[in-house]
Parts: sequence; C-alpha cells; structure tokens
Amino acid sequence: MLRAAFALFLCLSLAIAQSPVSYRGYDAAGAAQEHEWEMKYRSLPSPANMKADMERLAAHPHNVGSPYDNENAQWILAQFKSWGLDAHIETFDVLFPTPKERKLEMLSPSRFEAQLAEPPLSVDPTSNQTSEQLPTYNAYSGDGDVTAPLVYVNHGIPADYEVLDRLGISVKGAIVIARYGGSWRGIKPKVAYEHGAIGCIIYSDPRDDGYTSGNVFPDGAWRPPFGVQRGSVADMPLYAGDPLTPGVGATKDARRLSPKESPVLMKIPVLPISYSDARPLLAALGGEVVPPDWRGGLDITYHTGPGPAKVHLVMKSNWDLKPIHDVIATIPGSTLPDQWVIRGNHHDAWVNGAEDPVSGTISLLEEARSMSELVKQGWRPKRTIVFAAWDGEEPGLLGSTEWAETHASELSQKAVAYINSDSNGRGFLHAGGSHSLEMLVNQVARDVEDPETHLSVWKRLELNRMVGRRGAPSGEQAAGDLPISALGSGSDYTPFLQHLGIASVDLGFGGEDGGGIYHSIYDDIYWYEHFSDRDFVYGRALAQTAGTLVMRLAGAAVPGFEFNAQARTFSTYLDQVKTLWKTTRDQIETKDRLIEAGAYKAASDPRKPFVAQVKEAMPPFLDFSPLENAVDHLKRAAASYERAYAANPSESSALAGKVYLTERMLLDTKGLPRRPWFEHMVYAPGFYTGYGVKTLPAVREAIDQKEWSEVGPQIARTAAAIEREAQLLDSMTSMLH
Amino acid sequence: MLRAAFALFLCLSLAIAQSPVSYRGYDAAGAAQEHEWEMKYRSLPSPANMKADMERLAAHPHNVGSPYDNENAQWILAQFKSWGLDAHIETFDVLFPTPKERKLEMLSPSRFEAQLAEPPLSVDPTSNQTSEQLPTYNAYSGDGDVTAPLVYVNHGIPADYEVLDRLGISVKGAIVIARYGGSWRGIKPKVAYEHGAIGCIIYSDPRDDGYTSGNVFPDGAWRPPFGVQRGSVADMPLYAGDPLTPGVGATKDARRLSPKESPVLMKIPVLPISYSDARPLLAALGGEVVPPDWRGGLDITYHTGPGPAKVHLVMKSNWDLKPIHDVIATIPGSTLPDQWVIRGNHHDAWVNGAEDPVSGTISLLEEARSMSELVKQGWRPKRTIVFAAWDGEEPGLLGSTEWAETHASELSQKAVAYINSDSNGRGFLHAGGSHSLEMLVNQVARDVEDPETHLSVWKRLELNRMVGRRGAPSGEQAAGDLPISALGSGSDYTPFLQHLGIASVDLGFGGEDGGGIYHSIYDDIYWYEHFSDRDFVYGRALAQTAGTLVMRLAGAAVPGFEFNAQARTFSTYLDQVKTLWKTTRDQIETKDRLIEAGAYKAASDPRKPFVAQVKEAMPPFLDFSPLENAVDHLKRAAASYERAYAANPSESSALAGKVYLTERMLLDTKGLPRRPWFEHMVYAPGFYTGYGVKTLPAVREAIDQKEWSEVGPQIARTAAAIEREAQLLDSMTSMLH
Repeated sequence: MLRAAFALFLCLSLAIAQSPVSYRGYDAAGAAQEHEWEMKYRSLPSPANMKADMERLAAHPHNVGSPYDNENAQWILAQFKSWGLDAHIETFDVLFPTPKERKLEMLSPSRFEAQLAEPPLSVDPTSNQTSEQLPTYNAYSGDGDVTAPLVYVNHGIPADYEVLDRLGISVKGAIVIARYGGSWRGIKPKVAYEHGAIGCIIYSDPRDDGYTSGNVFPDGAWRPPFGVQRGSVADMPLYAGDPLTPGVGATKDARRLSPKESPVLMKIPVLPISYSDARPLLAALGGEVVPPDWRGGLDITYHTGPGPAKVHLVMKSNWDLKPIHDVIATIPGSTLPDQWVIRGNHHDAWVNGAEDPVSGTISLLEEARSMSELVKQGWRPKRTIVFAAWDGEEPGLLGSTEWAETHASELSQKAVAYINSDSNGRGFLHAGGSHSLEMLVNQVARDVEDPETHLSVWKRLELNRMVGRRGAPSGEQAAGDLPISALGSGSDYTPFLQHLGIASVDLGFGGEDGGGIYHSIYDDIYWYEHFSDRDFVYGRALAQTAGTLVMRLAGAAVPGFEFNAQARTFSTYLDQVKTLWKTTRDQIETKDRLIEAGAYKAASDPRKPFVAQVKEAMPPFLDFSPLENAVDHLKRAAASYERAYAANPSESSALAGKVYLTERMLLDTKGLPRRPWFEHMVYAPGFYTGYGVKTLPAVREAIDQKEWSEVGPQIARTAAAIEREAQLLDSMTSMLH
Repeated sequence: MLRAAFALFLCLSLAIAQSPVSYRGYDAAGAAQEHEWEMKYRSLPSPANMKADMERLAAHPHNVGSPYDNENAQWILAQFKSWGLDAHIETFDVLFPTPKERKLEMLSPSRFEAQLAEPPLSVDPTSNQTSEQLPTYNAYSGDGDVTAPLVYVNHGIPADYEVLDRLGISVKGAIVIARYGGSWRGIKPKVAYEHGAIGCIIYSDPRDDGYTSGNVFPDGAWRPPFGVQRGSVADMPLYAGDPLTPGVGATKDARRLSPKESPVLMKIPVLPISYSDARPLLAALGGEVVPPDWRGGLDITYHTGPGPAKVHLVMKSNWDLKPIHDVIATIPGSTLPDQWVIRGNHHDAWVNGAEDPVSGTISLLEEARSMSELVKQGWRPKRTIVFAAWDGEEPGLLGSTEWAETHASELSQKAVAYINSDSNGRGFLHAGGSHSLEMLVNQVARDVEDPETHLSVWKRLELNRMVGRRGAPSGEQAAGDLPISALGSGSDYTPFLQHLGIASVDLGFGGEDGGGIYHSIYDDIYWYEHFSDRDFVYGRALAQTAGTLVMRLAGAAVPGFEFNAQARTFSTYLDQVKTLWKTTRDQIETKDRLIEAGAYKAASDPRKPFVAQVKEAMPPFLDFSPLENAVDHLKRAAASYERAYAANPSESSALAGKVYLTERMLLDTKGLPRRPWFEHMVYAPGFYTGYGVKTLPAVREAIDQKEWSEVGPQIARTAAAIEREAQLLDSMTSMLH
C-alpha cells in the first residue's frame, strides 16, 4: 500500500533513470560508463555483512589504548588486505588521560555519595564487561580535590551566566552542576572556569535524553537512571587533535608540550554523572527557583543555589601517552593518482560503541569491500581513493588530526575532497559540508533508494521538509537542490576542512529513532539491534550514498564542484552577520531605553532578587563593504564560470587540478583570532558552542562577543579569503574560453 | 532607592494631579468636586480591616449549603447594615450535588486505590477542618460506576483528540485521564463524552501548578502532592446559573427542570485527583509515547494508552437543592436613582477560599464601608450604587445569575454597568470588559497608586508591558490607553454582560505570586498570609480601583462611555475572523497538497502508528461585507459622536439615559446558535474553551467548527447587532447637535 501511493514518483524516477544520464564533469560516454559501475556498486553493500561486522567490532569496549581497540585496528587492516587493497596502519602517540581517582559526595545538608557507575543489565550481554569499560569520566578534566557549595547553571553557556548575573548569583569559588545540551560539553567547564568556579559536574537530565522522551533502556531506547555520558572536555575550539602536539603529527619523535603547557586541558575537575546521581544534589539546592526553560524532567523544583548543598568532588587522572592506530587503505587512481578522494569514519569508541561509531564504520568497510569487488571486475577510478578508519576520534579527533597534520603538505596538494561519516541510524539523510559540493551531494542523493519508502533518499528528505515546514512548494522549488548544512565540529572532518581547507562532506541517516545511550556502556549491540537500524538497511543506504559520492568524484574528468550554490550560501551568511550586528544594536538600544524609562524596575517584583540592568555602550556602525564586494565578486565569478563551463564542459586536466583548490583559498594561514589552528574563514566550530558551527567565524564571533574594534580587521581578512577564491574562479573561467 | 529612580514620573503624575482635573461626563465644577470625594475615598480602605475580614470569612469552609456560608452571608449583611446601608439577603434554591460515593482504583496491571483526600498540614491551622470540607469532586459530574482501560488525553480538548486520531487511538468505551489546563475543566468531560468515553479523571500535573513551578505548600506557594482542584463541570457554555432554571430566577416557586432534563449536567462520571494519585495510573499506561507538548512534570514517560491500566471509577452524588444567599446593599442615587451601578464579588468558596474569593470579597466590603463613610460626610452619588456579595459562584455563577434572571427586566432598564472582581493578588492590574468602558478604566487606573512602586497602577502596567514586549514605545504610544481584554467567563459578570447586555468590567491584581492551591483545602489564611498579598496592600489597591470606577460612573452627568476604542477593537475582531477563515482555508489547502504529494507518508516512520490523513472539502469563500459595513458604520458613528460630544459635552439626562443602553444593542434575543441564553453577539465564553473568550462568537465558532453554511446567517445577525448600536450612537449624536 505504501508503494502504491508513490507509484507516480516511482514511474517518474524510473523514467529519469532510464533516460541517458548526465553527470557533471563527465562526457556522455563517461557518464554512461560511470552510471553502469555505480549501479553495480550500489547493489553490493550487504546488511548481513554489516551486522556481522558490528557484532565483531562492538563485541568489547574498544576505547583508545585498550587491547580491543588495537585488535579492531588489526582486524580492519586484515579485512582491507583480504579484499586486495593496499593497506597499512599509522600509529601516533597521544595524550589520553584515564581516571585514577573519582569521587563525588554531598556533605550537607545531608550526606550522599554518588555511585558514578553504570550497572550491567541482565538482558544486555555486553553490559557486564565491567573490567574492560572505561569508568564514567570526562577526558582532559583537570586534576583536583575541591569542596564547595553547589550552583545549578542550566546548560552552563554564557547566556545562562547572564541570567545568574541578573539574579545576583555568582559561581566564584563554587562547584557548578550543568545539564548536558545547549553546547558541546567542553564549553561548560570552560565557561564555569572563566566565571570563577572551581569544579564542574555535568549530568544527563531525563528531560533531554531520559524518561521524559521515552521508555528507558532496556525497555526502550532512552537513557536509564544510571546511564552516564562520557566524553572529552578538552578545549577543542582552540585546536583539535593531541593536546601536546598542536599543528604537527604526534609521531614518536614529535616535539611535545608538557601537559602544563597545553592550553586545551581543562583547568578544573569535571565529572559527568547520571540523573540518579544528580537528583539528590539538585533536590538539596536552595536559592532561587530557576526560570522555566532551565527546568529539567526530575520530580523536583529546580533551584539555582548556591547551596545549601555542599559537595566534595575529586577527579585525578593518569596522564599517559597512548598509541592510536589509524587504518589506511587505498585504491590507486588510474590516470590521476595524485588526486585523492578520502573517505573516513572512526573506529574507536568510549565503550562498546555499536552506534557511535560502529554503525558508520561498518558502512565504510562495506564501501571498501564493494569497491574492491568492482576493481576485480575491471573498474579503474581516475583518482586515488583513500579509506581511513580513524582511531582516537572520541577524545578529540586525534587519529584524523594527527594523520592530517603529518601529511599536511601532501594533502594540501592532493586532496580533492574528504567524505566523513560517524554514527548512523534510521530515517532521513543529513548532509553537511562545503557548499561547492552541494549540487553533487544532491545529485547523489537522487540516485540512492530510501529503504523504507523506496523513494530516493533525496525525495523522501524533500517531502519530509515539506511536512516540517507545513509548506507546499511550487513546482520550481520542488525541482531545486536541498541545502546542505555548514559544518561546525564533532567529527573527523574538522582537520581536513577547517585546518587544511579540503572540501568536505559529512553524511548520515537518522531522525526516526531517538535514544539516550550516547557514550555509555549501553551503546552496544543489544541496544542497536533492538532500537535502531536493526535490519542494517540504513547502513546500506549510507554505504550507497557515501560510496556513490566517492566514485562520482574519483571518476570525473573534472570533479563536480559547483560555485553558484556556494556564493548564494555565503551571501546569506553575510546577511546573517549584518543582521546580527543590527539585532545586537537594537537590543542594546531597547535595553538602554527601558532602563531610562525605569521599566525593568517597574516590572520587577520587589520580593524577588533583581540586579539593576546597566546601560551598555552602543555598537558602532561597521563597514561591511569589503565582504559585500568579495561576496559579490564570488557570485559573479561563479556565474561566469558556470556559463563558461556549460558552454564548453571541458575535460581539461588543468582545470581538474584547480577546481578542488578553491576551498584552499578560503584559508587564512594566520587562522582565527586566538585560535590559529582553525584557518578556514567561512566554517568553524563556535568558540562558545563547541560543535555548533559559526560561519564567517572571525566576523561573527567578534560581533557575538561585542569586540567592536576587532570586527573591521576580521571583515578584511575574511573578504580577502573569499576574494582569493573568486580570483581563482576567474582564472578557471578564462581557461574555459 | 526605588523611589528615587521614579522621581521623574512621580513629579509628572503629581503635576498632572495638581492641574485642574477633567473627567469625561463632568463639567469643571463637577469634576473638581468628584476629584475631592475620590481623593477622600481612596484614603479610606484599610489593609488592617481587610486582614480582619479575611480572617473572619475564611475561618471555616463556606461552600454553598454549608452552615458557615450562611453565617458569612448574615455577617456581611450585618456589616452592611452597621455602616448604615440599606441591605438585605436574597435567597434562591439551586441544584447543588455533593458526593455520596467516590472511588477510583486501578485493577490491573497492578492494584492501586486512589486516596482522593487532601491531608491536613500541622503548620496550617485551618487545614484540619476535615468534617466541614467538601470532599474532592467535580460538581455536576454524572453518576456512574464504570470500569474500563485508561487513555491519557493531554488537556482533553478537541485538538488533542485530533492528535489521538492521527495515532489511531480511540477513547470509545474508555476512561480518559486529562490534565488540568488548556481549557475550562468542564470542557474535558464534555469532549470526552462526545468521543465515546465513559468516564473522566482530571488531575493537576506538577508541571502546571506543582513542584515544576516552585516549592510546594507549605514550603512554598505551589500545589502539594495530594492537593486537588475541585470545581464545577456543568456545561456552562450552554447557560450559567442553576442547571434546573435556565433563564429564570431559582425562586421558591420557579418552574424547574428535572435533573434528567437539564442539558448542562455531565453525562459521565468525573473525578478530580492529585498528582500523587495520578502518578501510578499514568505510570501504568502503555501505548504510544505522547508528543512533547503533552508531557507533564512527573518522573515518568507519559504514554497515551489505551491500557494496560484498567481503572474502576465510581462517582455518585446527592442531588439536593440548596439555598444560596446573595447579600445586596444599596446607596440610593440622589438625582438618578433608577440608574444603577452594580459592584459585585462572590463570597462562597469551595473550601476556605482565602484567595478565591475572599481576597476580592474583602475589597468589596471595604469599598462599601468607605463609601458609607463618604455618605456620612455628605457625599451623594447621582446614581444608585448596588453592592452584591454573591453566593454560589463556584458551582456555576449561581447567585449572580439567579439574581440577574430574577431582576432581568428591571436591570435591562436600570443597570448602567456591572463591576466585578474575584480573587486578587500582588502585582499588576488586569482589567477586562466592555470596550465602551476602556477609556474610563484607563483614566481610573491612572489615579490609583501601585503600593510597591508608587507609580500609578496604569504606569506600572504600561512599563511592564514594555518589558514584556521588549519594545520601547514612542511618546505617542506611551500616552495612549492600554487595551482591556474581552471577557469570556469564569466569574459573575457573565449574566450581566452576556445574558443582559450590561456593560461590565472585571478587575483584579496579580502576576507576581504564583500558586497551586486553587480550589483546594490549602487555599486558606495561612497560605494567603505567607505567599500572596500578605500586607493586603493590593487588596486596598483593588478597593481603590473598583471604588473609583464605581464613583466615577455614579457621579457623572453622563457616564463616561466612549466608543472609538470599542469600534477599533471590534474592527480587529472582524480582522481576526477573516484571518481565521483564511488560515483555515490555507491549512486545508496545504494539507490536501501534502496528501497528494505523498508527503505525510514519506515523512512518517513505518515503525510508528500512522493513520493516513484524509482530504477535506475546501471552505467556500464567504461574504463578510455585512459585518464590514456594520463595523464601518460603528466606527463612523463613534467618531461623529466623539466630535459632537467634544464640541458640546452635554449633561443632558436624556443622553445619560441612553449612553449605557449601547451595550444592550449588541444582544440578539435569539442568542447564539445552540445556546440561546448567551445573547451578546460580541463577547462569549467559547463553546470548546469554557472560560476563554470568543469574540464575534456566532461567526467565529461557525468557522472554528467548519460549519460553513452557518457562517453567512451568523454574519448577518452579528452585523445587525453592531448596526443597532451604530444607529443608537447616531441618534445620540443628533441629540448633541
């Protein structure tokens, strides 16, 4: 019945499929050949293999430094080799602290000691591998033994401290308790420390991924009472990778900072806890009742404190170097072996990691196996394809970053694109990345079938967006490409995109199954096979999508970069930063006027704490014209290139050697203010969001942080980067004439 | 320090106060005299008296039919008389069921019996008057003894059943459990019954007025675990007052329906419960996980059911007639004794009712006492002032309605306006009512001092609205009147405004203290004196506001009705119903297009229940022109009247006798469709909202309910009513020329 309803679309898509295919960067014959190989390719990835691979890779905890992490790397290497691929392991030595001492207790008003442990569940066969599991902790926490009153800070992001300020509540000398969410976890202790806190507890509120959302594991997918989210709290927005070797590969003989010198290690002790452990602490808080959006799902009244709850927090680590093992396999390019299309997914996990990352790793493996199969059948990609199973992603993108830093100069020349995935699930395609690849991603998504609806994954996504927006787009809109999102951080694309300027795409499916096992012992095979893509059909869809994208890039005469979408997208980013300035200005103006009118005082309740708002300096008017000129140039350059390319779709290898360097132009080797490792002037993780992207980051964050004198110079640097790309496009256009 | 900040405004308002006053409907000498009496008046209401009065009136439970209800009436009568007022009690006999049998138990999957009782608290001296307290129940529930699977229906309003329909969940033959909120409580069992449910449980979720919002009583103001909200579930949107005597006074010898004939009695058993009693029932539900906005504050995953929880619900009442005692006192008018300004607040409560209604009753008493004082000093209002302490408001506006019905023809001729209040608290003035009195309410609010900020209550409200809107209005806006809200139902103005067409205003203060003791045994003196207007200064502010409004109306040559604001407001209502039609049409159009595109199916998760959406007939285009013409006529008539009145501010008694009849013009004696008792064509409580107002109700609800053929005739009737008022205004204008 489901299929009948979609008969019209199936006919339509079959009709399209049967007409002669046209692929950007391919001539007619090349496209026909490519089409044939891709059709073969997409029939190969096997859900049964993926299930078996997951049951192997997630059978034991395999965090960095664990025996099974190494065993998995060796096994992946053997797999690659068994398929006839040229493969090897690259090993780096990275700082990876593990807990030596952990303690959290409440001393008053009543005594309570936190359990800090996740109990095995009898129905879940891997949950009892206790001796192999990393304890619940936040890697790169500071060492410390502190006792202080507790303050609840909501998500613990800067906006939350503004609320506390208005309530007259300080965290100076206090231990804060923040709930997960609202930012990347590492932001919470960083901002707490900036505000004078001496310790930080992070807990998973049931409202966010526990019983509020659904039945808890093992009855359902959501976080059980003692489930804890492990995770890194290094200051990754400064730089990714090994904390001791910023900018260079963590090889045996690399020059290393001492841990004390490393700026990314947290200064205060941090510990993640469950909502069972958090409840007594939160219930013991007094002080103000929190604002409505700070409330969680516990059956208590949430208060801010400080106190009367007084807690004792101890966190000490073994600060050891540990080896990490990246597994690298290649399919050599036939005619352009020095142009690389890189496809990566990490293999390390916090514990068993069936979802994170094995659900993505198994797709990578099936892609490699399937392409090896094609090679046996005579397929020869023009470009070299590099498969990478990264180690050490969880603590801080260690494996990908150290590899990228080690091979930086070669990658700068050779890397055409980096295609990433990580956890995968059931539902809708989500794609983020460089907007010069937006058109290509859309084209590929139109060629992959959604296993549940048998529409293309593109069509299902589009129809879902229609329902989400409650909109009924016109025929024109329906035919247009769907936007891909900009990338912040949180997975292995960061060193490629934001450090080296390699056009990147991050792919995955999801949105139909929620869950609350992230970074806990319950992210395991039992959970995945009950509550996620249990038939592994979305594992196959990911392999089909990522593999097709890799093949399309590797086989083209000229890889299918397109720049109109990019120019249009950058133009919206420019509009956003202009609006951000305007909004900031309007808000300050309004606030000042309300202060003058006495409105805040009149509106306030004399029985409740109220710290008078203070007037702020008005933001100056800013000269956005350098960016406006650069974006305008890029728009015109993109349009000219597109016209010239359409008139004369060149297969010139000179053009092929330039087109992917466009992303490099967006780098500024001096990097972003206060974090030179991040060189991309358009995409970066936010300094105070962590994973969340900030586009045009040097400009946007100067406005965010009201550093008005910084905005002008950063406009100039950002404009110059965009200008460089526009000039490269102009030179490519002249090659076409 | 607070005062210093407002020095500018104080100076300003003092400056205004010292310039010669100008009151609409008064000549210069009259205004000066009125000003002097009002200044005297506002110095008289005494917080100490109010505290003493509350401690007397709320000392024992005083629900309808209880000994203390009668004692209070006698005491109020004695007070009125002691101040020299002409006072008497009017008694009616009304149907007031009280519980004979109540039981709620869960039979499976585990056994649980609900407590159905509110425990006394040792710190709270009146909470242990158990023998005098009404049990927790919903008056006018059907009698029944039913056993069935349970279904959670969120608020239990029509929109919630649409969600259940999409999930394929029926309540036919089930017992529903709904949380309080989202509508008047009586809507919940009514809609449940319409959908085939055989019983209804209503509970107070902690998210709404329990621990989620703040500390619970007695530590804080919010609903404790076993607190229950009593309340009526008669189908009040059909008619208010005694269920057995619709439209006529429930006098001794009135013709009565039998209970079986009364259309307003609920057909199924209904019982209100606490969140302690609700938790085991909700925790035992299976079925679907509810949508995010259906989630409450309990520490469970909320499911819809049906079942596996199976419950047994018994509710049986004694269906007795009970006497109610309205206490009426008058100050006779000097020159226009047959024009009445009526001021009312009820005195009955569900239990002790310190907040509801005694916090308002004590203001009414101080107004009467203070005006008696003025009379002793020689004050003689032109019009008769009627003070009314109503009984039986809680079960269904019984005292006010039966009195209004009994005196309907006299009131139709004589009533100039009805000024109501009910519960009162700390914070900001809220005023609702007839928009022909909007200007007058604004003028009065400018003359009353806010006890916390010492601004006028008007100024504080305006500044608070500025903060709420984050807006900084220009000078013009700041000088303009603030809108008053339209009245739905929920207090004693309903029979006056919506049955008899008497211009009404409802006044109260609040917004600074929340609380969760509504209709429970904990709404008592201890709670009020700890968590609300404990200094009784907002009790005084209410007495000052309502009393000034009464005096200003009673003393004017021509009462200060003004019609531009009314015409402007009605015009926005017309815009709203037109937009409602447009939105309804757009939604259906979008939905149909999404169905055709297969978008809902593509967006749905095949593992989750999904009932295919069905296409709906497109709404026809409608002829709003009769309403547009009528509203336009009203606008022009109001403007002409205003111009003529400004040029020649007549004191003619002929005009005075007409101006207040304008509200009568808005009646249509045939009433609203399916509920003829409600005759007002502009303001009504919603058929499916209960308390929530529906303006232009005959038209709006026909669109709401997609009764397209009904819209045209109702546009005509509504337009005719507005047209009648415009014609009356035209005739008043010609009197001025």
